[in-house]
Order: sequence, then C-alpha cells, then structure tokens
Amino acid sequence: LQIAYDGTNYHGFASQADEDVETIEGALNNAISSLTGESISVIGASRTDAGVHAYGNIAVFDTASTIPADRFFMALNTKLPADIRAITSYEVQSDFHPRHTNSKKTYVYRIFNGDIMPPVLNNHYEHCSFDIDIDIMKSAGGYLIGEHDFTSFCSVNTQSPDHVRKIYDVDVCEIPYELNVLGDVSDKKNQKIIEIRVTGNGFLYNMVRIIAGTLIDFGIKNRNPEEIIDILSRCDRSAAGPTAPACGLYLIGYEYI
Amino acid sequence: LQIAYDGTNYHGFASQADEDVETIEGALNNAISSLTGESISVIGASRTDAGVHAYGNIAVFDTASTIPADRFFMALNTKLPADIRAITSYEVQSDFHPRHTNSKKTYVYRIFNGDIMPPVLNNHYEHCSFDIDIDIMKSAGGYLIGEHDFTSFCSVNTQSPDHVRKIYDVDVCEIPYELNVLGDVSDKKNQKIIEIRVTGNGFLYNMVRIIAGTLIDFGIKNRNPEEIIDILSRCDRSAAGPTAPACGLYLIGYEYI
Repeated sequence: LQIAYDGTNYHGFASQADEDVETIEGALNNAISSLTGESISVIGASRTDAGVHAYGNIAVFDTASTIPADRFFMALNTKLPADIRAITSYEVQSDFHPRHTNSKKTYVYRIFNGDIMPPVLNNHYEHCSFDIDIDIMKSAGGYLIGEHDFTSFCSVNTQSPDHVRKIYDVDVCEIPYELNVLGDVSDKKNQKIIEIRVTGNGFLYNMVRIIAGTLIDFGIKNRNPEEIIDILSRCDRSAAGPTAPACGLYLIGYEYI
Repeated sequence: LQIAYDGTNYHGFASQADEDVETIEGALNNAISSLTGESISVIGASRTDAGVHAYGNIAVFDTASTIPADRFFMALNTKLPADIRAITSYEVQSDFHPRHTNSKKTYVYRIFNGDIMPPVLNNHYEHCSFDIDIDIMKSAGGYLIGEHDFTSFCSVNTQSPDHVRKIYDVDVCEIPYELNVLGDVSDKKNQKIIEIRVTGNGFLYNMVRIIAGTLIDFGIKNRNPEEIIDILSRCDRSAAGPTAPACGLYLIGYEYI
C-alpha cells in the first residue's frame, strides 16, 4: 500500500500499547481487518512522528483476501478515515520488507517566512518570522550531500547503532504559489514560502527535522555555509541547530532500488 | 482590522444567539474586549459561511483604547486563537462602514482534480474526481464579467432585494505547486489543482460557490461555454449548477474604492 495522510490528529505512525491513542498504523490495521475479516498488522516503511504528514509512506501486510491486489486500495478507502488515504496497492514478494530493502526516500520540509502566519497554513508549515536567506540555506545544504556520519543531525534518543547515511540530494527553493493566493492584497510585507527537499538512502531519528532546523539557523544568522562541514565532522548533536517542528515535514515517497 | 482565518472550526463569521456556537465575530469580540476592557462588537465586511476561509476580511469597531491603531493588531494577536490572525490595523473615519462603502472584493475557489484527494488538502480544497477542462471553465467564466442580474447564481434564501452585481474579473487557472510537493512519486495519475479567482463589487448569498459549482459542471461535461449566457438571462437558481462546498472558498480581500 502507498499511504497518504495528514498527521495533525495522530500520535505518529507506530501503534502504541494504549489503544486509545490514535495512530496511523492502528487506523490501517483496523480498516484492513474490517475489510478482510482477518486480524491484520501492517509493517510500515517509515514510522513518522506525531504531526508529520505523508504522501507516499508504504505499508505491507499478508492477506488471504480475494480482493485483487491492484484494486485493494479503492476498497480500503471506504473503511479509512478521510485524513488517511490509500493511493495505490500491489502484490509484492512474500519476503519483501519495506524497511530492509534498499530505497531512496524523499522528504520535504515547508516553512512560512513572514511576520504573521496565515492561519490556513497552520499544522502544515513551520512559521519563522525572522528573514531567511535561501541562498545560504542552499549552499549549506549542498555540503550534506554524500555519505557521512550524521551523528550531529540525529536525536540523542536514536536506537540505531550505525549513524552513516547517504544523502543523494538537498535542495532549497522559494515557492511562489501560496502567496499568490494569500498575499496579493496584503500590505506587501516581506513574506515567502521556503521548501527544503532531501533524498537519501535512509534517515536517522529526527534527522530531516534537525537538518531543516540547522539550515534555517544558517539562513537567519547569515552563517558561512562551510561551517556545516565542521558541524558534520564533530559527530555531536549539540553542534547542529534545533529540531524543526513536526508539522512542516512531509514524507513524499519511496523508490525501492 | 484586516483579519485572516481558517474557517474549518467555526460556524461562519456572524455571531449567533447561542454563545456556545464558535464564530469568527464572537472570537474577535472576546479578544478585543479582553484587550481593551471595553465591551466591543465588531462590524464585519463579509459574513462568510461556516468552513469558508479568509485572508483579508475587514472588521471595524469603536474603542477608547490608548493602544496606537497601527499596532493594535499585534496586541490583538496575543489574545486571538491561532486559527484567527489580525494582519494589520489602522484608524478609519468614525462613519466608515465596511459593508456600506464601495469596494472591490476578491474571492478564490480552489479545487483538487484527481482520483484520490491528498489528505493534507482536506478542509482547504474541493475534491472533484471527474476530469475537468480548464479552458471551458475559463471561457464560460468570461461571460459573467460585467454588470448582470445574478439571480441564477444566488441562493433562494437570499435576503437581498437587488440581485444586480458587477463582476470585474473571472479567471481560472491551473496551479502547479502542490503537486510538485505531493505528486512527484505518485503513479502519474492525471491530477491537478485548479483555482478560480473572482473580483466584483459585491456578491449575493452563496454567489461565488454557485459560480464555482457551475463552472466545474461546464468543465466536467464539456458544455458549450456560451450556455452560461442563457443561465444568466433566465434569472432562475435552478438553471445554474450546484453550490460548491464551503471548504474550497477563500475571501482574499477588499479594496475600498
């Protein structure tokens, strides 16, 4: 299953011992079980945090259902809440594991940069009221491309022993659209939408949010982009910037390679 | 005050007799009264429906507060809920009435056109799963420009005796942005974002939503754009298309002329 969701009203992807806590995984298990009459537990590709959104998370499960695999997503959408949608579905090899298969994974982080956050963007963008230099963010982000030890960009609560990951691309750009809708009758304050897009072979706990928080810090303080090389090499979480809020983060999708 | 809000959790702008019903006007009155210590009742420019969003609604009130008018909005934002923001504030003539002053008023209506609605767009876009021809919508919309009797595009529940309004501009265009974020790893289904933008000297009850619903109907059914001339001339609500859902509608702003 390719799964899209608005993470605002969920305590993250991973189901929790307390069944009263709403999770994406719990909602998927309930809906699929209801549809097939089996007791289903999905395996998710990415256990996104509370408040994080997704367009292309992946969930895999075993079933004896007679619903054709490539139509399963349509039936499932009749059982899922409106803030979770199955985008597509297909049959995979029985030994396929969505986390133990090599993949390229893309995240986007979105920021509203301006004095006053338009309320329709709440829960879907970080709000930063200090002016951000996008060129500095972009240059600093470029130094993260490649295979590195990302200990500095990883929550100290990680359970992963290996902190080496490969980043294929980091891009930072200004997005004109929302301001065409929302800003054309405002008093022309300096405001913009910024998007950070990161593709890698895997990400440590909070890694994209720490990358986003660090690049924003560079862009606000006009730091020399090369300083990020030193942050990487120190392998120390306290060397990097803050963890940016969950609501700006979108898991865009997986490409299995 | 220029006011922006996410209308999702409000029963419209206008305050209601039942004070437990959350309204934008009620929230503004409470916040301003709390800030000034006076008992304030604002006059709103547009009494938007439940679920409708705004970037530039206008609210006017009398106060003896010593907070400078051009800084009032900043103080007010400390008292307002996060889904309502004051964008700016200034002093007006004491006889200024935001509904009885000539103005150009702009609305935007946003549609997600594709099989499966990305959940992060819920509450902020209409979802239409039938393929829409934008050129037909644009051509049909063009015939609405000018001064006309808009009875066909007005709820039968209107209390306005005069149904003549002047439309300055109707534009329909495809917006690429959200799909750059959300769709690049999808299975390339035919999906797009459509924006209708309408500027007029005033709008009857549900008029923009009926215009949107009618243009969408033309775009789905490949109707001849000129048929909209007949719909206008019949002065009959049943001649036009359905009232499009509130969640896709944004009051962008006012220009007093």
